[in-house]
Amino acid sequence: MSELRDILALRAEAVTRRLDVLLTSAAGSRGRVIAAMRYSALAGGKRLRPFLVMESASLFDVDPEHALQCAAAVEMIHCYSLIHDDLPAMDDSDLRRGRATAHKEFDEATAILAGDGLLTEAFAVLAAPQSHPDPAVRVELIAGLAEASGAAGMVGGQMIDIAPDRDALDLPGITNLQALKTGALITFSCEAGAILGRAKDSERQALRSYARDLGLAFQIVDDLLDSESTPEELGKPTGQDAAAGKATFVGILGIEGARGKARDLVKSACAHLAIFSQKAKLLEATAQFVLDRKT
Amino acid sequence: MSELRDILALRAEAVTRRLDVLLTSAAGSRGRVIAAMRYSALAGGKRLRPFLVMESASLFDVDPEHALQCAAAVEMIHCYSLIHDDLPAMDDSDLRRGRATAHKEFDEATAILAGDGLLTEAFAVLAAPQSHPDPAVRVELIAGLAEASGAAGMVGGQMIDIAPDRDALDLPGITNLQALKTGALITFSCEAGAILGRAKDSERQALRSYARDLGLAFQIVDDLLDSESTPEELGKPTGQDAAAGKATFVGILGIEGARGKARDLVKSACAHLAIFSQKAKLLEATAQFVLDRKT
Repeated sequence: MSELRDILALRAEAVTRRLDVLLTSAAGSRGRVIAAMRYSALAGGKRLRPFLVMESASLFDVDPEHALQCAAAVEMIHCYSLIHDDLPAMDDSDLRRGRATAHKEFDEATAILAGDGLLTEAFAVLAAPQSHPDPAVRVELIAGLAEASGAAGMVGGQMIDIAPDRDALDLPGITNLQALKTGALITFSCEAGAILGRAKDSERQALRSYARDLGLAFQIVDDLLDSESTPEELGKPTGQDAAAGKATFVGILGIEGARGKARDLVKSACAHLAIFSQKAKLLEATAQFVLDRKT
Repeated sequence: MSELRDILALRAEAVTRRLDVLLTSAAGSRGRVIAAMRYSALAGGKRLRPFLVMESASLFDVDPEHALQCAAAVEMIHCYSLIHDDLPAMDDSDLRRGRATAHKEFDEATAILAGDGLLTEAFAVLAAPQSHPDPAVRVELIAGLAEASGAAGMVGGQMIDIAPDRDALDLPGITNLQALKTGALITFSCEAGAILGRAKDSERQALRSYARDLGLAFQIVDDLLDSESTPEELGKPTGQDAAAGKATFVGILGIEGARGKARDLVKSACAHLAIFSQKAKLLEATAQFVLDRKT
């Protein structure tokens, strides 16, 4: 477990360094939007999605340089979604990863543009030969990322999350919300490794199933942390969902029920990795890490 | 000229029909963001950028189906940029294409998400085989569109446009602003035809030069219309830039100076088309149309 934490930290650093290179500073007024993109993208975080890209790619002996490039693109999408979700018109959050949110540090217009810029840049990164020499692979990555991020994925999930009937969602409802809002990008992160490695359909499907269970477990643990942690521990506001009367996994299943469900999902996630045997042991450890994490 | 207007209208209808097919309605809360995407994308407008894609593609006998698909993707980017530019944190506009802006018709959060959704969907459309059978061509289109739309293009231009020192820009400054904010996407629109048609470098460069002059003329005419038209004529607010003390081409060059500059640019734009001879006569007429337009 501590070995995994070390590897996660090393990979996170590599992703941050790559993002630092990809998001080149500029002078003049235009530099302001790039500064905001860098502020949000280089702020740290667990870098779980990039880790999943790199680790799933390693199952198929993908060139780590290609995996890192693809991982950076996925993280750009994640960071853009955080910037826009935090906006006053959405969740109106002041704190993210222990720092002021982008619209607090800069201003609202700059934050909107920084999100737009990161979203756009993610596709530029995948379109460049550095992500894979074969254009057919690059275009498959782009199609997958766009589907996971758009109205049938993350954007659609955020729309459900802020809808007036959000509070009254039942278990299938919040499961669907999670599958779109956070699950789709987590699933793509794992699938990206299979695309980069031109994996067999059965291997790709195994990674999708692993990611689906992992993503849901991740969200349930998020709800548990939100109900049991302080803002200082998490680096972002806590208890807001429950206070706003929003349906959560913890609200519907109870603390013990939610914890049990997360445990079952992690067990199921790991079972899907059986076909990869020893090669997937870090992905297994990651599922356990998602269950045990405190932030 | 009236022949061109008829062709423009026909092409605009084809683009709207294609957008209608590509942006499939959905039920439930998620349907709201798609409704907002459709509200903005199907609202009409001149569809100049899609026309430029289709017309430049026709120079190289590109399959019109591929050109139309690519044209729809470009229009999605244009529509997303209008939604986000109109937001309260940006230009705070209530009126667009003669109707309520997206955040007025829906709400601010939905408008932000609808913009994000259209931006993402544009790349999904280009990544699909319908835009071209060769993945290498698709990936080149995606790279070009991302560059034109991102922080080195449209997003960067909008940042400059809302910066505190915007009012004091000189002629090179507003020319650079225009080149990024509107010029980059107009240039890509013309270049897309060359990419789809695997044109020679000299042909691609000729289209870029045509587009650069056309785009600048377009913006100068925009400034002229803004200073001389009513909101009823344009379907959006007018005179705001001058009232806000913003530097404009008309402000710096005067009405006659601006008109003369636009005329010179249109002449120069058409000169770049000489290598295509008769095949480019609609692109020539388009340049004249941009100069003479009243909306």
